[in-house]
Amino acid sequence: MTHHPSISESRIGSWHDAPAGIGAPVDTIDTPALLIELDAFERNLAEVHAVIQTAGIAVRSHGKAHKCPDIALRQIHAGAVGICVQKASEAEAFIEVGVKNILITNQVVGVRKVERIARLAAHAHMGVCVDNVVQVHQIGAAARRHHVAIDVYIEQDVGAGRCGVTTHAAAIELAQAIQTYSPALVFAGLQAYHGKAQHLRTSAERTQAIGSACDKVRDMIAALKVAGFEVNAVTGGGTGTYELEAESGLYTEVQPGSYVLMDNDYGKNTPATDTPELQHVLHVLCTVISVSSTHSVVDGGLKCFAVDSGLPRVVLPGWTVKGVSDEHTTIVPAPGTPALKVGDKIRFISGHCDPTVNLHDWLIAVRNGKVEELWPVSARGAVF
Amino acid sequence: MTHHPSISESRIGSWHDAPAGIGAPVDTIDTPALLIELDAFERNLAEVHAVIQTAGIAVRSHGKAHKCPDIALRQIHAGAVGICVQKASEAEAFIEVGVKNILITNQVVGVRKVERIARLAAHAHMGVCVDNVVQVHQIGAAARRHHVAIDVYIEQDVGAGRCGVTTHAAAIELAQAIQTYSPALVFAGLQAYHGKAQHLRTSAERTQAIGSACDKVRDMIAALKVAGFEVNAVTGGGTGTYELEAESGLYTEVQPGSYVLMDNDYGKNTPATDTPELQHVLHVLCTVISVSSTHSVVDGGLKCFAVDSGLPRVVLPGWTVKGVSDEHTTIVPAPGTPALKVGDKIRFISGHCDPTVNLHDWLIAVRNGKVEELWPVSARGAVF
Repeated sequence: MTHHPSISESRIGSWHDAPAGIGAPVDTIDTPALLIELDAFERNLAEVHAVIQTAGIAVRSHGKAHKCPDIALRQIHAGAVGICVQKASEAEAFIEVGVKNILITNQVVGVRKVERIARLAAHAHMGVCVDNVVQVHQIGAAARRHHVAIDVYIEQDVGAGRCGVTTHAAAIELAQAIQTYSPALVFAGLQAYHGKAQHLRTSAERTQAIGSACDKVRDMIAALKVAGFEVNAVTGGGTGTYELEAESGLYTEVQPGSYVLMDNDYGKNTPATDTPELQHVLHVLCTVISVSSTHSVVDGGLKCFAVDSGLPRVVLPGWTVKGVSDEHTTIVPAPGTPALKVGDKIRFISGHCDPTVNLHDWLIAVRNGKVEELWPVSARGAVF
Repeated sequence: MTHHPSISESRIGSWHDAPAGIGAPVDTIDTPALLIELDAFERNLAEVHAVIQTAGIAVRSHGKAHKCPDIALRQIHAGAVGICVQKASEAEAFIEVGVKNILITNQVVGVRKVERIARLAAHAHMGVCVDNVVQVHQIGAAARRHHVAIDVYIEQDVGAGRCGVTTHAAAIELAQAIQTYSPALVFAGLQAYHGKAQHLRTSAERTQAIGSACDKVRDMIAALKVAGFEVNAVTGGGTGTYELEAESGLYTEVQPGSYVLMDNDYGKNTPATDTPELQHVLHVLCTVISVSSTHSVVDGGLKCFAVDSGLPRVVLPGWTVKGVSDEHTTIVPAPGTPALKVGDKIRFISGHCDPTVNLHDWLIAVRNGKVEELWPVSARGAVF
């Protein structure tokens, strides 16, 4: 192997190469840069946790959205019982800073990955999801080899149509397989996340979807009970539906992630009347690098904004995004809009926060127009 | 600032955490992983460089596509006069391994960035593009402060409708501004890249587009000559059109990037009859983590594939990609297709190589089903 130190390595490791200094005005931040508006961040964090805690259940914030240990520690300080992740390598970034309770809300397949999880289980309470006995055998063997205990949640497909068992028989088979690895594996409960429901636009549609999910979960709990397996925990829910799972009387834990960032897609949801309206926290700051009579161009493109949920939105009256290419976003003015100048700094809101954060090394926490903290996106690119 | 060592840092820095060992069979690589098929890579590299060198002009391969110093060094070994990048921070990754000639094919705006470039100019021959006098003043002041000389190319909009001057008067004004900073700035020529032409599907459409670009460049050269400025270099062209610029008699240098990787988008172009048909080099290897009667799910999603140019294509007869979410891709079988098993490894070809590579830390160079080399994507995430 030819090994070169990476530019990412040297940039993250060096104070000098951080995109701004503490206390610097926002307009001096090197771009493209991800800004966290701290007032909105703290408000969303407090309000969502209050709704969940009032309902008497646990919040386990999802770290896949932010991949940032500094945010995870603030979520735990605000009452989260632990952090969810999607990947074993993400778990490492959080455990490294002292997070003690991690649920991987995903099926984990492969010897390297289950070994990684079993090693981590010596440092933190670890949980994983399964929907196939192959996964149980892999994680069970690893847990035994490392003399650790790992929580296993059976994932139930409650409407997303992706992973998860759809029959009671399959769940019972999994519970039995988990039991054969006791005490290395512990049947911890059900993972029942309805991903598709998160982005249904009206409160009525989301209420119906989560009602249907609850019916499926209730039947599953009953079937497992008949087979001799008690379900002590049901976990699921996201930023779009967390209040519905919280008030269901069935879920014991919810897993919101985007609530501390937000994006255009979640911004299109109409909240229920009794639910806090979440504010946009995450902004992408760009610099105008080229101007013409018809359009202007900024210094961030596809390597700065994820576009799977639509183009970013420019936060500047009279301007709209025309297109995004690898390194550029082209914006066009409405008639009569004052022209921009090369060097102007402009904010954008991304279509989808999770994959947008994953493109950046730093989150720059700002308040009142100044940089307050610099947070590394330590689990950026942690795909394993 | 709270600084935590990043997971990316530790993964890149550690042999143990590389996704595979040298010599390992492809099926043992940890996933999701980016594979480079070395036979196809070497064939594309040799064939494209041969076309360009036969035309008697220079090839300056574009590093924004691969962000990988190991590839840049192979391109230079195969005759490239230097490397193009889009960002100052990308240039650092290539200069670190000894690349001595870098052109930033982009407008660079901001004090931090021009300082970075001027510092790099002490280690490598550096060029930048301009389309506004503000950029000339910024880079000129930095070059003077650091007592270096930097090549400046005037970018002309030859049809892409993004950056670049559209009038002769604007170009002459820029040439004059560059001259005022002599010898710190050197007017090096024209950047005339027609981005939109790269993805026109037929050879006839691309020929027409580059013909039109050449007309614009020819007029611009004449206008600058009348104003007293000799144009000694014209650089541009990409993987879709390089042979047209090469045979134009006008361009002195071409800038292909994707040719060493390829993607579904470029795969849709019909090559000219006298041009090498480029092969897909870049594959994304994923593992099946969940199977059902209707679909299977693999362990890579939006954080593994860029989807701006469409969904990835699965390289397995009878299967098609149904959808991609943050961490999952769902594939569905045609009737009668044999089922998959949890743990099966499957290859995909991404819609767009540049932003896909930018999501990964490693390129795994394979030949005949085995890992031959591991190449870090050192400039991954270098957005500044």
